[in-house]
Amino acid sequence: MTARNAFYAQSGGVTAVINASACGVIETARKYPDKIKNVLAGRNGIVGALTEELIDTGKESREDIAALRYTPGGAFGSCRYKLADPEKDRKEFERLLDVFRAHDIGYFFYNGGGDSADTCYKISRFSTLMGYPIQAIHVPKTIDNDLPLTDCCPGFGSVAKYIAVSTVEASFDVRSMCRTSTKIFVLEVMGRHAGWIAAAGGLAENYGIPVVILFPEVEFNEKKFLAQVENKVRRHGYCTVVVSEGCKYPDGTFLADQGARDAFGHAHLGGAAPVVANMICEELGYPFHWAVANYLQRSARHIASAIDVEQAYEVGAAAVNLALQGKNSVMPTIVRLSSEPYRYEIGVADLENVANVEKMMPKSFIRDDGYGITEECRKYLQPLVQGENYPPYKMGLPEYVTLQNTMVSKKLPPFDKKI
Amino acid sequence: MTARNAFYAQSGGVTAVINASACGVIETARKYPDKIKNVLAGRNGIVGALTEELIDTGKESREDIAALRYTPGGAFGSCRYKLADPEKDRKEFERLLDVFRAHDIGYFFYNGGGDSADTCYKISRFSTLMGYPIQAIHVPKTIDNDLPLTDCCPGFGSVAKYIAVSTVEASFDVRSMCRTSTKIFVLEVMGRHAGWIAAAGGLAENYGIPVVILFPEVEFNEKKFLAQVENKVRRHGYCTVVVSEGCKYPDGTFLADQGARDAFGHAHLGGAAPVVANMICEELGYPFHWAVANYLQRSARHIASAIDVEQAYEVGAAAVNLALQGKNSVMPTIVRLSSEPYRYEIGVADLENVANVEKMMPKSFIRDDGYGITEECRKYLQPLVQGENYPPYKMGLPEYVTLQNTMVSKKLPPFDKKI
Repeated sequence: MTARNAFYAQSGGVTAVINASACGVIETARKYPDKIKNVLAGRNGIVGALTEELIDTGKESREDIAALRYTPGGAFGSCRYKLADPEKDRKEFERLLDVFRAHDIGYFFYNGGGDSADTCYKISRFSTLMGYPIQAIHVPKTIDNDLPLTDCCPGFGSVAKYIAVSTVEASFDVRSMCRTSTKIFVLEVMGRHAGWIAAAGGLAENYGIPVVILFPEVEFNEKKFLAQVENKVRRHGYCTVVVSEGCKYPDGTFLADQGARDAFGHAHLGGAAPVVANMICEELGYPFHWAVANYLQRSARHIASAIDVEQAYEVGAAAVNLALQGKNSVMPTIVRLSSEPYRYEIGVADLENVANVEKMMPKSFIRDDGYGITEECRKYLQPLVQGENYPPYKMGLPEYVTLQNTMVSKKLPPFDKKI
Repeated sequence: MTARNAFYAQSGGVTAVINASACGVIETARKYPDKIKNVLAGRNGIVGALTEELIDTGKESREDIAALRYTPGGAFGSCRYKLADPEKDRKEFERLLDVFRAHDIGYFFYNGGGDSADTCYKISRFSTLMGYPIQAIHVPKTIDNDLPLTDCCPGFGSVAKYIAVSTVEASFDVRSMCRTSTKIFVLEVMGRHAGWIAAAGGLAENYGIPVVILFPEVEFNEKKFLAQVENKVRRHGYCTVVVSEGCKYPDGTFLADQGARDAFGHAHLGGAAPVVANMICEELGYPFHWAVANYLQRSARHIASAIDVEQAYEVGAAAVNLALQGKNSVMPTIVRLSSEPYRYEIGVADLENVANVEKMMPKSFIRDDGYGITEECRKYLQPLVQGENYPPYKMGLPEYVTLQNTMVSKKLPPFDKKI
């Protein structure tokens, strides 16, 4: 077997640890120069493959590649770009194969969530069909934790840790203030379809903090919700609300989309947090503060979970090993062996069974009243936030790396579709 | 000199390190049992003195008091409560002296910002006037960094570090996404009157990140602001905006108060971040994300600045030492001796000169164009975010302490004013 190049790309919303997976891919590939000549990274994800914007990772120093392990964001750029279905329009897939052929790419590593798994699967099938077989391995990543066949998704543990720690800290704050001032703190978290991230706020109950969680899985009921909040304020003097951005009214309207308009009639102003906070103030009269974590939560490498960083690295390394074992159209998975103490191993799943399947949070993870997590959920979450893995600091700020990102010379005419 | 009790209370908005000051006060007081019998803490700040709700800190273990050093929030509760001016209504001040007398309190340590310094000053004067002299020492604390006569205020360095790190991390995220998705990230930070906290976002420029800062000191000009943003997006592909909650239009209206109304006509919906983000989207068409850090920033003990923690502890310890030296109506200060390398010492200021003076950010800290920080500002800020001082963790979550807070038996009839 002659050595060939590998292609690696980051896809969709980035995480605090997606670069740890990149680090796992590149460091492992570098161990087998007889099989993998070089890892070419797509600039801005799959878009880079279409536009033939390929980054020569061989030009990056060993130190800089190692620093990816503790650098948030997507070091090569990511994208939100859905390829056309090759059964309807082959143009993009043919272009991908042209680029792969021109750069002698024999391995395709795609680091993303559900949509990317589907793309990876299609690339595997299409390339086989076209007689240019390429080993396509999907590297799982998503803060949404919604990929099937894996116990958890790299990226999720770190968001969960950030949300759990932030909920605890802000609750300690409001607990101090509640006698004469703020009694309600509302934190809005990501998760449009599933409440995995919101559930992490429930870990604050370990400290005796009164938390009310609004899951996207539970239809919002203003009366019941306010009763929960009022009850907690009466008992504890304060209450913390963790609201998922995906929380909806029974008619399917998002809380965040309550027709909010500014003075000029512009829409989009809201988040779910201010809507909920104002509702509590109007109905119960409690003074409030609210926060919207947004990107802060998924980029917070400074408080990443050590287990998450480790798993992100390992799925990257495993992807290369699977490729070298001749596997195709698969995804390394995380298999939980035990929760207490936490033990796991890396498994493998066929992409055919991964693509387009969304793993929802089990009903048994949500408390019967709909406003908190169960013990089963706590047992699931607790190991995923375990361990701290701090980046190095210099002058008080983290030493995150920005790569050189040297481009490989183009060999093809420009792609004739504007992206 | 016979030993007497000390009173300690936390006032106003809490910080990530106010408990480190409490730790400094209590640990130092415990070294001098022949002079200080016990530290009685006001439950919920000065309110606890009025209601005679005094916490017996002598009942807390050495380990739990030590854990205050790394626990955010206010361990004894804080308050937003302004005492009546004793020249107009003596009732509250007389009650305070009754409580102090009943519990043999000879030292008064008040941990707060500008308003608290004023209260502390008045207590010192009033007690002398009434023939119950008490040594009143103010322990500086405020994330707003606006106390005079001290180079910085404990609490500020940790917020600055949180905002700097968060700005960097979220910018790495949006930089990854900007080719096909989000090009603008807006982070709203605290600081209603001064831009100290917003300025910390400027440290992200150390990484080559394009940052536009909206200070409360600079009148908002939509056209100029949008030109700044557009220019940065053209050059870098993305732009991060750090907006202070105190940013105002020339007529004095807050950006955050743009008459936003929800579908039911309720006000208060906005923050400054969504207003700015929507403005950019409407005028320039860039996709955006926004976050509002709110309490997360001032409670983020997990990413506290080591220098800040150290200084918070030291002003607490110094307050006790000043009292034992017979000082009254003073506040320990932080005196900068050198910026590179950073060296400081603890000084002392008369409360007469501290009370009711607000230290604004020097004009020379804001760049001429109004949208960034100067080198002078960077030199000021950089040492204050230096060093990491992580709390211990267990099972992935910080081991923050919740004290027993055992109450001292009351000796007086209830205060006849409802608080």
